[in-house]
Amino acid sequence: MQMDPQELLSLCKRRGFLWPAYDIYGAVSGLYDYGPLGAALKNNIENQWRRLYVLQEGFYEISCPVVAPEPVFKASGHVDAFCDVYVECTSCGETYRADHLAAGMHPNPASLGEHELGKLLKANGVKCVECKGELTEPKRFNLMFKTSIGAGKGKTAYLRPETAQGMFVNFAQVYRYGRERLPFGAVQVGRAFRNEISPRQGLIRLREFSMMEAELFVHPEDKTWPGFRKVKDRAMPLVPSKGDPRTIRLDEAVKAKVIGNEVLAYYMWLTYKFALDIGLDPARLRFRQHEKTEMAHYASDCWDLEAETGYGWIELVGVADRGCYDVQAHIDHSGADLTAFERFDEPKEVEQDVVKPDFGELGPLFKGKAKKVAEALSRLSPESAKGKDKVMVEVDGEKVSVPAKCFEVSRRKEKVSGRKIVPHVIEPSYGVDRMMFALLDHAYSKKDDYVTLRLKPLVAPIKVGVFPLMPKDGLDEIAQGIYNDLTGAGFDSYLDDSGSIGRRYARMDEVGTPWCVTVDYDTKNDGTVTVRDRDTAEQTRIKKEKVPKAIEALVKGAGLSSLNTLR
Amino acid sequence: MQMDPQELLSLCKRRGFLWPAYDIYGAVSGLYDYGPLGAALKNNIENQWRRLYVLQEGFYEISCPVVAPEPVFKASGHVDAFCDVYVECTSCGETYRADHLAAGMHPNPASLGEHELGKLLKANGVKCVECKGELTEPKRFNLMFKTSIGAGKGKTAYLRPETAQGMFVNFAQVYRYGRERLPFGAVQVGRAFRNEISPRQGLIRLREFSMMEAELFVHPEDKTWPGFRKVKDRAMPLVPSKGDPRTIRLDEAVKAKVIGNEVLAYYMWLTYKFALDIGLDPARLRFRQHEKTEMAHYASDCWDLEAETGYGWIELVGVADRGCYDVQAHIDHSGADLTAFERFDEPKEVEQDVVKPDFGELGPLFKGKAKKVAEALSRLSPESAKGKDKVMVEVDGEKVSVPAKCFEVSRRKEKVSGRKIVPHVIEPSYGVDRMMFALLDHAYSKKDDYVTLRLKPLVAPIKVGVFPLMPKDGLDEIAQGIYNDLTGAGFDSYLDDSGSIGRRYARMDEVGTPWCVTVDYDTKNDGTVTVRDRDTAEQTRIKKEKVPKAIEALVKGAGLSSLNTLR
Repeated sequence: MQMDPQELLSLCKRRGFLWPAYDIYGAVSGLYDYGPLGAALKNNIENQWRRLYVLQEGFYEISCPVVAPEPVFKASGHVDAFCDVYVECTSCGETYRADHLAAGMHPNPASLGEHELGKLLKANGVKCVECKGELTEPKRFNLMFKTSIGAGKGKTAYLRPETAQGMFVNFAQVYRYGRERLPFGAVQVGRAFRNEISPRQGLIRLREFSMMEAELFVHPEDKTWPGFRKVKDRAMPLVPSKGDPRTIRLDEAVKAKVIGNEVLAYYMWLTYKFALDIGLDPARLRFRQHEKTEMAHYASDCWDLEAETGYGWIELVGVADRGCYDVQAHIDHSGADLTAFERFDEPKEVEQDVVKPDFGELGPLFKGKAKKVAEALSRLSPESAKGKDKVMVEVDGEKVSVPAKCFEVSRRKEKVSGRKIVPHVIEPSYGVDRMMFALLDHAYSKKDDYVTLRLKPLVAPIKVGVFPLMPKDGLDEIAQGIYNDLTGAGFDSYLDDSGSIGRRYARMDEVGTPWCVTVDYDTKNDGTVTVRDRDTAEQTRIKKEKVPKAIEALVKGAGLSSLNTLR
Repeated sequence: MQMDPQELLSLCKRRGFLWPAYDIYGAVSGLYDYGPLGAALKNNIENQWRRLYVLQEGFYEISCPVVAPEPVFKASGHVDAFCDVYVECTSCGETYRADHLAAGMHPNPASLGEHELGKLLKANGVKCVECKGELTEPKRFNLMFKTSIGAGKGKTAYLRPETAQGMFVNFAQVYRYGRERLPFGAVQVGRAFRNEISPRQGLIRLREFSMMEAELFVHPEDKTWPGFRKVKDRAMPLVPSKGDPRTIRLDEAVKAKVIGNEVLAYYMWLTYKFALDIGLDPARLRFRQHEKTEMAHYASDCWDLEAETGYGWIELVGVADRGCYDVQAHIDHSGADLTAFERFDEPKEVEQDVVKPDFGELGPLFKGKAKKVAEALSRLSPESAKGKDKVMVEVDGEKVSVPAKCFEVSRRKEKVSGRKIVPHVIEPSYGVDRMMFALLDHAYSKKDDYVTLRLKPLVAPIKVGVFPLMPKDGLDEIAQGIYNDLTGAGFDSYLDDSGSIGRRYARMDEVGTPWCVTVDYDTKNDGTVTVRDRDTAEQTRIKKEKVPKAIEALVKGAGLSSLNTLR
C-alpha cells in the first residue's frame, strides 16, 4: 500500500515513537527525538544487527568518539569534497540547496559546480520560495559540523559524517587484536552528523542520525569467500546498472559479473537477510547498482539496498567494494604503517620495490635523528613513497616530513618471508533511522480507520500488553504480578487498566504489540488468562504462571495453538 | 590493592579494551576509542542498567540528539555558567586550568574568579610548566563544544554536556506518553561532551564520554516512595556532610534526616545495588554527601557514589534532589506548559494565585492576537509569572514576550477540580566510562606477574574461551562447532588455537573471561570437553552438546559442580 508519510509521522508523534527535537524552542529541522517506543525499536534493530555481525560473523565492535581532529577528514577527503552548494535569500535569510532549486532546468543539476548553477538559476529567474526575495550567488558549504577542541587557539575538529573513519584509523590496532590475520572486520554502531542545508522528509534526511557500519578488510587479490557456497543458490532482486532488473541467484550474479565478487555478493545477501529478519517487505526491497558516474572514483562496485516507501524508493544500506582507497589515504597522510603482512609458505626470491634511504641527504637534514628517520623510511610500503615529493614518517612519536631527495624507490631482488599488503575494504553501511522509517512504513496497515502496525516480535518495542479486565477485585494485583514476571524475564511489557478491552487492544495494535494478556474473573477461579494474537485476533487461555514461558515460545516463532500444553 | 593506574591502562591498550583516539595523527588528549573488549564491556554495563531502570523500575527510555540549539543551554544555565578559568603560555601556547596551577596557594582555588586567580598566580610567580614561558591573564572558557546548524548565518548550537536536558525539554511529551500520571521517570543512555582545558587521568576526565541518566519526576510535596519499604532495612556506607562516616540502614538515614527523603534514599540504594551487581568491590565504595558550598544552589540534597581506585576516591554517580529547578527554568525560557495536573478527589473551593490578563493593555499591544495571548497567559502557572517583568507565551507556534503590565497575579477563591504543579526531579546520573575504569581497577588482580581480571560473568566481554588442544585431527572442527553453538546462543566467545593451553588460559584470564572449554583427544572418544573456571581453576568434564546450556547456568550463578548432570 502506497501511503502518505505524513499519516505515519503523525502516528509516530502521537504514540511516542518520535518527536521533533527541541519543540518547545521552535524545533530544528533535521533533528528528532526518539520517544520510548522509537528508542526501544531502535535498540531492538541495533541488537539484532549485532547478533548477526558480531556474534555470527565475528566482526569486532569498536566505539570511537564522534569528535575528530581535522587531519582525519583531510585524509578521508571530507574537508575538501564533502560539500553542497547553497544560495541564501537576501531578504528573509532562508537557505536552499542550489541543485534542488535547479530541478528540471538541467538533466543532472547535482553534477554542476557553483558557477554553472548560478548561471542556470539566474537564466531561469529563480527567486526565494518563501518570500520571492533575491538570492545570493551560489556558495559551497561543507556539510560537516565544525567545532574546536581545547581552550585558547584550540584545534579545528569536526563531528564525524560517518563512523567508518574510526575503523580505518584504528586498522593497525584491530589487526593486532585479531592476531594479525586477514580477512577480519570491524563494526561500529553510533551517531553521525551532516549539517544539511535544508533537510525535509522526516527521518529520511537528518542532521544527526545513527549508523551501523561494517568494514571488512580482505586480501586485495582474493575476493572469494568461504561462506559464499552456503548462500550461492539464494536469489535477490537486483537492478544492475546494465541490463534489466531481475531476481537472480548469487552464483549466477557473480559468474555473469553482475556483482563484482563473492565477498560483495555474500554481504549483499547478509544485508538482504537482515532486512527480511527485522520485517521489511520483500516485495518492496531491491538492490540497485550505482552507475559509474554515481560511484566514488575509487570504488569498484557499489549496491544500495532500497525500500519502497511513501517517499518512493529510498536507500537504506550501501554495500561497496572500496578497494584500498581508505586505508591508503590514511597511510599517505599519517605515515603510519597500516598494512597487513602476508607470510609466504616458504621464503621466496622476489624482485620488488623497496624504499632505500639516502644517508648523504638524511644526515645534514635530520642530524641525530637521521638513523631513526632512515629506519622509518625502510618500513614504508613502496606504494606510499613511489612518485611522492615528500613522505610523512613517525619518529619518537612525532610526525616528520621527509623530502624525496632523501630516499629512492628501486627494484631489488631479495629473499623475503612475506610482503606487506594494503587491504581492500568491503563496506556494508546501514542507516538506522531510514531502516526504522521503512520498517514502520511496511508494517503500517489500515482497515476502516483501524490501524495495526504489523511489526515482527523481534523488533516490536512492546512485546506484551497486560490488562486486568477491571482495575479492582484483585484482578489488578494479578495483572501487576504477570507484568512483573514478564519484565523480570526481559520482555518489554505494558500494563493498561483503563477503557474497554477492545480499546486497549486497539492501543496495542496501533503500536505493534504482538500479544495481549487479559486477566478476568475466571482467572480468580481457574488461574488462567487469555492470550490474544495481534495479527490473527486468535485467542487462547493458559495458566497465568506460564505467561513468560509462552511469550518466550511465541517470540521464537511458535504459533498460538502450540500453547495448549500451557493450559 | 592500591594499584598504579598506568599498569591498568597499559593492559587495556595492549589487550584491546581502549586506545588513545586518532593515535596515527598524534592522538588528542581526553578522547579514547573502545576496542572490541571495551565496547563489549560498555554494552554489557549499559544493558544491565537498562534491565534495572527500564524493565524493573519502568522508566521510559528516550533518545535525543547530542547537537542542541543555544536556547536549550541558555535556559539550563550552561551558556552563562558552565565555565573553567584558563591561562595560556605566551611562548609555547600550552593551556592550563588556572585553579589547578594555583593548587596549594589557596584553600579552595576552584572557588576563585578569574581576577583573583590572576593575582594569586602572579604573586606566586607561576610560569608555564612545559617551557617556563610567561602566562596570559586568566580567562573564562565555556566547556561546551560550540558549533553551528545550517548554511549561511546558521544557528549557534552546542554539543550537550549532559543528557539530562533532553528529558526536561520533553517533559510534556513523556508525561503524555505515560498517560499523565505522576510520578514517572525518563532515562537516556548516550554520549555527552565537555571541552576540558587540559584533560589528563585516562578515563576519569574525558572530552567525550557516555552517561546513563535517569530523571524521576515526582510530586513536589510527596517524596515518600512505595518501593522504599522493601529496602528500608538495607545498609550503605555513607559519608554525610555533618557527622561521622558510617554504614547505616536506609530507614534510619531518612528518619535522622541524613538522607533528605525516601525517594532519594531508594535511588541511592538502587545505584549501590547496581554497582554491586556489575562487580564493584563493596569495600571500596561509599556515598559522599555534597557540602552545602559544593551543591548547586537549587539542589536540596546530593550524594556521590564514589569508588576507591588508583587515582584515589573518584565520583561514579551523582544522585540528587534537584527540586523544580530544571523544569521551571524551561517553563520560564520557553513559555511552554511543563506542568503536571493534580486532580483532587473532589472539586474544592480554594484560594489560589491566578494569572489575570489585562485586556486594556493587551489590546493595543497585540491587536488581533490579544485574545489568544490572554488565553495563553491564563494557562501559565502563577509561579512562572509572579514578580517577573515579562513572561514568554506561545501563540500559534510563535513565542511572544508579554510585559508585566499586561497581567496581574492575584489571589482568588474558586472551585477547582485540581491544580497544575511543577514536578520535582530526582536524578541519578551515571558516568559510564568512570564506572568501567573503576570496575577494571577493582577486578585487576596480580600474583607473581600473573594477571587475572576478576570481572563478573554479567559484564565480562568474552564469556567463554574455546580451545582445541591441537589445531588438527578434527579437534579444530569440534571446537569450531562448539564456538558456533555458543555464539548462536548469544554468548560472546573466543576461539583460540595457538600456544600451550596454559598460555591460552592466561590470555583469557587477563581479559576477564570466566570460563574456558577445551577440546582434547578424549572428546573424540567420549564426546566430553573440559570446562575450567577462571577464579577457582577448578575443572569438570561435560558433554560437548551441553556447553551452551552449561554456560547459561553458570552465567545465572550456578557453580561448576552443578554441571554434573551435563556429563
